[in-house]
Amino acid sequence: MEKFDIHILGCGSALPTTRHQATSQVINIREKLFMIDCGEGTQVQLRRSRLRFNRLNHIFISHLHGDHCFGLIGLISTFGMLERTADLHIHCHPDLEKLMAPQLDFFCKGMTYQVFFHPFNPGEQTVIYDDRSVSVETIPLRHRMPTCGFLFKEKPTPNHIIREMIDFYQIPICMINRIKNGEDYVTNDGTVIPNSRLTIPSDPPRMYAYCSDTCYLPRIVPQIQGVDLLFHEATFANTEAVRAKQTFHSTAAQAALIAREAQVKKLLIGHFSARYEDESILLKEASEIFPHTMLAEENLKISL
Amino acid sequence: MEKFDIHILGCGSALPTTRHQATSQVINIREKLFMIDCGEGTQVQLRRSRLRFNRLNHIFISHLHGDHCFGLIGLISTFGMLERTADLHIHCHPDLEKLMAPQLDFFCKGMTYQVFFHPFNPGEQTVIYDDRSVSVETIPLRHRMPTCGFLFKEKPTPNHIIREMIDFYQIPICMINRIKNGEDYVTNDGTVIPNSRLTIPSDPPRMYAYCSDTCYLPRIVPQIQGVDLLFHEATFANTEAVRAKQTFHSTAAQAALIAREAQVKKLLIGHFSARYEDESILLKEASEIFPHTMLAEENLKISL
Repeated sequence: MEKFDIHILGCGSALPTTRHQATSQVINIREKLFMIDCGEGTQVQLRRSRLRFNRLNHIFISHLHGDHCFGLIGLISTFGMLERTADLHIHCHPDLEKLMAPQLDFFCKGMTYQVFFHPFNPGEQTVIYDDRSVSVETIPLRHRMPTCGFLFKEKPTPNHIIREMIDFYQIPICMINRIKNGEDYVTNDGTVIPNSRLTIPSDPPRMYAYCSDTCYLPRIVPQIQGVDLLFHEATFANTEAVRAKQTFHSTAAQAALIAREAQVKKLLIGHFSARYEDESILLKEASEIFPHTMLAEENLKISL
Repeated sequence: MEKFDIHILGCGSALPTTRHQATSQVINIREKLFMIDCGEGTQVQLRRSRLRFNRLNHIFISHLHGDHCFGLIGLISTFGMLERTADLHIHCHPDLEKLMAPQLDFFCKGMTYQVFFHPFNPGEQTVIYDDRSVSVETIPLRHRMPTCGFLFKEKPTPNHIIREMIDFYQIPICMINRIKNGEDYVTNDGTVIPNSRLTIPSDPPRMYAYCSDTCYLPRIVPQIQGVDLLFHEATFANTEAVRAKQTFHSTAAQAALIAREAQVKKLLIGHFSARYEDESILLKEASEIFPHTMLAEENLKISL
């Protein structure tokens, strides 16, 4: 199966601790890397992950709080020192380009590569990236400022051909791609060999949904229905439910309610408040509602 | 003896590694904290040091390369979330305030404390800070952009009174401070008791010089003559002497030459290039010229 890995670089929340890094993740889809959010210290975590920097061409920023974007300038500047040549694309709220422009002009003058900003409106559900392997669409969320999550949808892969059947019917090589993509084969004497005899269906396309930061927001359920993995913020435990509401964050239990409602396969919770020395209480509260729950942690890799 | 501690928060150079943090140090002088430089990740290192954030009121930035200042915005923003109330003073090149203004306006709106920038000209040797415990003066350096080091000079402390002599001459309490500060005592019958009979001299004031980043620059020797500790960058080993010159950095041997010439008590080298997996070669090359050399490392504390 082709790669679809989630690498957690950081899963802390606004106040940094020595236990957790600021938010950042890298999604590896078929050896293309996509970064989501880029808190302070992300570049060192990226180095630690041993992922190849030059495979990373797209960064998606969920919202403009510092713990989700203060690491960008360091990352961009380091890529410059490493003499990167490929363009780097940053998908973000329109304000970020204006905010970063003076720093980019000053600190990143004369770099060997270019940075492009692709603004989007986080309040609107839109496809903001699309290639032949994957599309990325925004998941509008509700937080203290315009915020969205991201839904990564793999494109279907061609069916696998059954080599023995190809040989048996002496099917010419030029037909192979069409058969992979679902066509039947017609022999010289006019017999139709149905595609299902020649191929094994490929694995169903996989989906990953990233939702951080947000208050409890059941309206996202239809959009993330059935995803293979849902990352949902779980800043607080039940005891802090009032504070969660006030600060437009979620409790672990609320994350689990969303996961259950959306019938996702697995739930990964993160964005832990600095107050929790150990997050087992969050895991417990979420698991009671949705058993397939995991705690995020730095340097964790999940393969879908 | 009163505190004069150097805490190394980070001693790597421009390219971050998993072995070293970006440059930052905290000087603790009599429980007042002074930060020098603030690379990305400094706030987490500061937390790790367990130094008390609210004792830090002054930050000195040596020059505007990212590895010396990208951590400022995160630190300032975190202080805001912690509801700091004391003013924070940043001493730096005039350009930094302009560069940070848009980010401060956006990310740090409505903070409970104020940030003040105190611009100085790094090309000129000047006292940029002065209180009753310490003064800080710039050490103009030569790098690829305007850069200076900082010389921390402790103020002399009053002499220690000899309690027995005070009792013996029945010296009134109101005179004690004047005697501590060097006055003789005149008894009622006009006899002069010289100060040296009443006090023990206090420890000589201590000095710390921080020199990063710079090419080999013997003209700084008179200014740092005899300091208790010299931090000097040692980005490269002898094999990279040409590259050191080209990039306006120093080799470990050059740092040691400066230390020897200035007859400093101890030399601490840092700002290590990412190419050195282990810095023992730098220590060896420096120690051959100046034996009292130490390697900087994260979380190291040196008490003067």
